[in-house]
Amino acid sequence: MDNFTFYAPTYFAFGKESEKQIGSLIRRFGGSKVLMVYGGGSIKRNGVYDAVTAAMNEENIPFVELSGIQPNPRSGPVYQGIEICRKEKIDFVLAVGGGSSIDTAKAIAAGAVYDGDFWDYYSKDMTIDRALPVGTVLTIAAAGSEGSPDSVITLEDGMVKRGATGEALRPRFSILNPEFTTTLPAYQTACGITDIMIHVCERYFTNTEDVEITDRLCEGILKSMIEEAPKVIADPADYQARANIMWGGMVAHNNICGVGREQDWASHDIEHELSALYDCAHGAGLAVIAPNWMTYVTEHNVSRMAQFAVRVWGCDMDFAHPERTAQEGIARFRAFLTSIGMPATIRELGGKEEDIPTLVKMLGVADGRQVGGYIKITPEAAEAIYRMAM
Amino acid sequence: MDNFTFYAPTYFAFGKESEKQIGSLIRRFGGSKVLMVYGGGSIKRNGVYDAVTAAMNEENIPFVELSGIQPNPRSGPVYQGIEICRKEKIDFVLAVGGGSSIDTAKAIAAGAVYDGDFWDYYSKDMTIDRALPVGTVLTIAAAGSEGSPDSVITLEDGMVKRGATGEALRPRFSILNPEFTTTLPAYQTACGITDIMIHVCERYFTNTEDVEITDRLCEGILKSMIEEAPKVIADPADYQARANIMWGGMVAHNNICGVGREQDWASHDIEHELSALYDCAHGAGLAVIAPNWMTYVTEHNVSRMAQFAVRVWGCDMDFAHPERTAQEGIARFRAFLTSIGMPATIRELGGKEEDIPTLVKMLGVADGRQVGGYIKITPEAAEAIYRMAM
Repeated sequence: MDNFTFYAPTYFAFGKESEKQIGSLIRRFGGSKVLMVYGGGSIKRNGVYDAVTAAMNEENIPFVELSGIQPNPRSGPVYQGIEICRKEKIDFVLAVGGGSSIDTAKAIAAGAVYDGDFWDYYSKDMTIDRALPVGTVLTIAAAGSEGSPDSVITLEDGMVKRGATGEALRPRFSILNPEFTTTLPAYQTACGITDIMIHVCERYFTNTEDVEITDRLCEGILKSMIEEAPKVIADPADYQARANIMWGGMVAHNNICGVGREQDWASHDIEHELSALYDCAHGAGLAVIAPNWMTYVTEHNVSRMAQFAVRVWGCDMDFAHPERTAQEGIARFRAFLTSIGMPATIRELGGKEEDIPTLVKMLGVADGRQVGGYIKITPEAAEAIYRMAM
Repeated sequence: MDNFTFYAPTYFAFGKESEKQIGSLIRRFGGSKVLMVYGGGSIKRNGVYDAVTAAMNEENIPFVELSGIQPNPRSGPVYQGIEICRKEKIDFVLAVGGGSSIDTAKAIAAGAVYDGDFWDYYSKDMTIDRALPVGTVLTIAAAGSEGSPDSVITLEDGMVKRGATGEALRPRFSILNPEFTTTLPAYQTACGITDIMIHVCERYFTNTEDVEITDRLCEGILKSMIEEAPKVIADPADYQARANIMWGGMVAHNNICGVGREQDWASHDIEHELSALYDCAHGAGLAVIAPNWMTYVTEHNVSRMAQFAVRVWGCDMDFAHPERTAQEGIARFRAFLTSIGMPATIRELGGKEEDIPTLVKMLGVADGRQVGGYIKITPEAAEAIYRMAM
């Protein structure tokens, strides 16, 4: 196990009517004037907008709104939000939505108190240690941004998708009401579950030895997703399944299951180019990339892939041929993804064979960008994985 | 899943030489003059005392010492510490040790800023929402107090052992260097592992339905303890096993695996009377009580006990006779405890049959004290469990 630090001081209010705590939580964490960041009209249709604004009004907390945040959130609204924060003397940024709204809120919170261009943080590997406080009201269980110090934004100029991180980006509080996720369509729900599972896999596939405790936590999260996913696909209003998935999404990504070990993140990086190029859902892109990444890396450590197959997917171990067990695990993962409605190929996302050189170029590994911790992704590896996923 | 809040803002510095961060962490969390609370001479013998004091001296942080904290920590040193804090204008309490030193430090931290008797918090079910900041340097993986909002103290007058809780008791930081635990004798190491496992079991046995995500996290922690325990009993200097157990002990008790569900805690309460009466190690007392509690409650929910047997202990499910599977799981747990050197009977702790009425009386359930969430412990149940454990 490697040395590490772990600091996750987000206050979680979980369950029915937890949004009623918003006002007092904003005050507790130093907010007096709020920028409320959200997406399109869905929160207006399903009552979340009314519930959240009512809770703020009840506590007489003034707020300004920034709406229209899109999936794969872009730099435009970030610049807009930063300007509003400065002009309106905002001291708290509240995201209402999924990862896109939250990541945008985080970028705004960092940019509002930074003299330079907020994109510096995303393009220059600078850690964000200063930002306005951020709170979240989660409406999509997926990105885990409600409990993480991370944010991913796409720069509109060139459609470059990059992430930033820093302690200052951990939300001060997150409201997790599973009822807020029940109107989410099955496809997006499945994308979210896929994202959650790959957040765990990015941590699970490691070269660090002797990390049994975090291995077991990872496996536990994956198994609970495997158990809960079919329930929620069958019945979107299944509160209990929604609740398990929602808390699982947080635990998958606040890093409690990833400490003390080298992590991978190649599937995320390789996928980001798909969602940047085709504007597909990140989870759908991951469903296409991750199993092929797994096939590609199996040889690197057959035992670990067999462990994944046995412990997570319940495969019987073929002691004479561990590689068969490893392959069987990946096959079950593929079948699971298909069963919840996820695509299996880049083609289904609108991509085509000819795009591969562009995707590889966008990934930037030929220009020295480091992608992957489990194995280092070379341009050849990237090309192979995109081709397998085609 | 029940509604809940979860707020665990402890900064963990984990690994070799993590104690070098003590000075900067004390300053970061508002400390300028420290009360250092520790036990006997072991930290002086194994170098921990030198490492910790050197780190504080390096940052020019003045500190006063309170030593001699005993296992099953008592009220005497708490009163002493409170007096020192007031007289010396202490603004930070640093525990160096295991649960006893940490729980004492927490009681001192709360009592120092409370006008009444600190015991009010422990005897009157008052939540502690004000205390001096507390930091810890952990030397025994067991109590989980390094990441929890709890403290257990024994009032010397009458030897009453009670717990208190409150957000203000969560340590601001905890230093977890697994090397600091390698000199711990096998017996105490095994007691710690038992305590960690029962912290999980107290959460695992619940009447709340549909808590798959926390079930799986609980099972993961238990399985990793089952895997790591024999390694560290065989080789106390096994750093990796020590590291897994140390982080597992924190995760087992900071409540990440216990949210959203009714918890039990009967085994802890029933055990506390053993350690109060016989001054035995808490973990040893738990090893004696918990399996008998499990046998006693099996009928209450055979399926859950069978799940414990299958998922944690790897039993084959006997679908025709689930109760046999349940019993087999408990039998494997007993065998495991024996294998790591734990006692199986109250007699081994120095107790005798005639003490049972005293133990039941001390437990206080006849006087209306509520013990147990999974099943309510009546005086008859308590007597039966003590008798089974005899």
